[in-house]
Amino acid sequence: MWQIDEDALVSISIGAGILGTGGGGNPYIGMLRARELVREHGPVDVLDLDELPDDSRVICVGGMGAPTVGVEKVRGTESYRAVRAIEKHTGERATALISGEIGGSNSLEPLIPAALARLPVVDGDGMGRAFPELQMTTFFIYGIPPTPSAVCDEKGNTAIIEDAVSPTWVERMARAVTIVMGCAPVFAFAPMSAADVRRTAIPGTLSLAKSLGEAVRRAQREKGDPVEAILTTVPGRVLFQGKIVDVERRTTEGFARGRVTIDGMGDDAGAQLVVDFQNENLVAHRDGALIVTVPDLICIVDAERGEPITTELLRYGFRVSVLGFPAPPLLKTPEALAVVGPEAFGYEAAYVPLEPRATP
Amino acid sequence: MWQIDEDALVSISIGAGILGTGGGGNPYIGMLRARELVREHGPVDVLDLDELPDDSRVICVGGMGAPTVGVEKVRGTESYRAVRAIEKHTGERATALISGEIGGSNSLEPLIPAALARLPVVDGDGMGRAFPELQMTTFFIYGIPPTPSAVCDEKGNTAIIEDAVSPTWVERMARAVTIVMGCAPVFAFAPMSAADVRRTAIPGTLSLAKSLGEAVRRAQREKGDPVEAILTTVPGRVLFQGKIVDVERRTTEGFARGRVTIDGMGDDAGAQLVVDFQNENLVAHRDGALIVTVPDLICIVDAERGEPITTELLRYGFRVSVLGFPAPPLLKTPEALAVVGPEAFGYEAAYVPLEPRATP
Repeated sequence: MWQIDEDALVSISIGAGILGTGGGGNPYIGMLRARELVREHGPVDVLDLDELPDDSRVICVGGMGAPTVGVEKVRGTESYRAVRAIEKHTGERATALISGEIGGSNSLEPLIPAALARLPVVDGDGMGRAFPELQMTTFFIYGIPPTPSAVCDEKGNTAIIEDAVSPTWVERMARAVTIVMGCAPVFAFAPMSAADVRRTAIPGTLSLAKSLGEAVRRAQREKGDPVEAILTTVPGRVLFQGKIVDVERRTTEGFARGRVTIDGMGDDAGAQLVVDFQNENLVAHRDGALIVTVPDLICIVDAERGEPITTELLRYGFRVSVLGFPAPPLLKTPEALAVVGPEAFGYEAAYVPLEPRATP
Repeated sequence: MWQIDEDALVSISIGAGILGTGGGGNPYIGMLRARELVREHGPVDVLDLDELPDDSRVICVGGMGAPTVGVEKVRGTESYRAVRAIEKHTGERATALISGEIGGSNSLEPLIPAALARLPVVDGDGMGRAFPELQMTTFFIYGIPPTPSAVCDEKGNTAIIEDAVSPTWVERMARAVTIVMGCAPVFAFAPMSAADVRRTAIPGTLSLAKSLGEAVRRAQREKGDPVEAILTTVPGRVLFQGKIVDVERRTTEGFARGRVTIDGMGDDAGAQLVVDFQNENLVAHRDGALIVTVPDLICIVDAERGEPITTELLRYGFRVSVLGFPAPPLLKTPEALAVVGPEAFGYEAAYVPLEPRATP
């Protein structure tokens, strides 16, 4: 067991911003919100999957919507209400909370109800990154029932998805409600058992986010290379270096969709990289050739400081490094690729796993 | 107490089609569906408001969506599932059912769960006509809590609106879910007490629909004037007679919206009537001058046979009589007009009550 204190929050927010592949909600705002509650209620306990008591009831919670909205309409304690709504509806109290996705502010969303309800959070999540749609969690891919689930907004509205013929139908109904709620509600679903969580979660991702953030911060302090520090912490490779020259972005159907175009610099001078996103970065084309796809991670970071640049903050002129990381094994099985592979996002391309760079 | 048998179903469907002011769902299809269940399970008991036992728990049920879709995608027993979902969620069994709106097939929707669950239905409804949006029932206008409510589709999906800051927010969330469900789900909300129903329902509307239908059928049989028979049963007036020369209609945002243009014939030769609708007929302009608005009833019937023509069936060339009826008193209070008056539908016009023709 370890604890998330104020300092850990800062590190996690940086690491989760990187793992979020552009999405998962603005990590800095998520950190500020969680910090308020940690200051008021004290640090939050983190349990490894192995440390979860066998009779645990673990509620998964996270934000829904478009990150372009999430940076303008900051959430309050809706996720506490969502947890309580599920507890009331199922008649079961949660004993721990877990993040639906480790990416971005959603890594920290469970800390808010955890601090308020004095519950621990689990060191793991349902994506090992961020994805835009609910059916894309490993929980649902590997058979955890997606109902009942709750969607709560900041105004006091709550919808419960009681029955759904598939996880994709939960996404459809929850997304429709998300849009009328103004694109920044929270989502929670019925408690999972310890065995369920151990079987289906991506393990250790809160620790990983913390290590990543610590490595970046250390490199910044010691005038090292933060990008190198990232790649030393997580096996991956630099896909491209350059300057953002164009950003197309629109908030539509409850998502931030668009693409960013980057002109190469240094070793990549003369080349161009285009990254498509739906909240999260989905695929990268170099000079028209597809080089990386979901579920592998495509992460855009500030070239100097190594800090993540989420899709809603991409701007003309930023100097960036684009990093690629292999997806966790649970996202690369045939059943997972059917839900989170490139074809699930409408691309006519088979998944070709990204290889990390050879160890020097 | 009286009973709805096969013959009564036919009469109610005609009368409810007239009271539906163009909407409420196709009454003929509603009749066919209810007839199946009445044939299988026997007639359904109807209780007057006075006959409701004091400890009643009355669940209101009806279809949601656009009538343009409802005629193509016929409902099954979703409304039984909606009633059961509310019973399960609240832990209270219904003792009677009531229609949200007497208009169109929604007058008969409660008969389906009533036949299956062997429950009586109440002689009354929440509109005394049909309206397109949920907050427009007298139940919610006069303070009945609109949550929890359930939206169920034919596939097996169920969403529950658990908390809402207003009845309009229930409508917004339920409409969003309705659209992704394919625009023809059903809606039910938490049980009302007998006192609640007596205070807020429009009384006697199932009997009224039956009387209207009987009058039309009798006039048809006896080669009388069905339009005259309608006006003898319900005080109202002929607003216009003519031929449909144009219909604009689109299914958008979960509604059938549009307008119908009618060229005058007989006494109205040379004049033109335009009726705007959102599922239901909202306002009528004669040669550009507003002559009737919601909440008063604007009903388009076949000029010869007196049978209602719902908005999804309006066609070029039909010879029609356009009838106007004063709305029930519960729809004309200041609090009701704020929700169902012309301004609530975006018209810059104060409500001017329609006067029925002077008794000869």
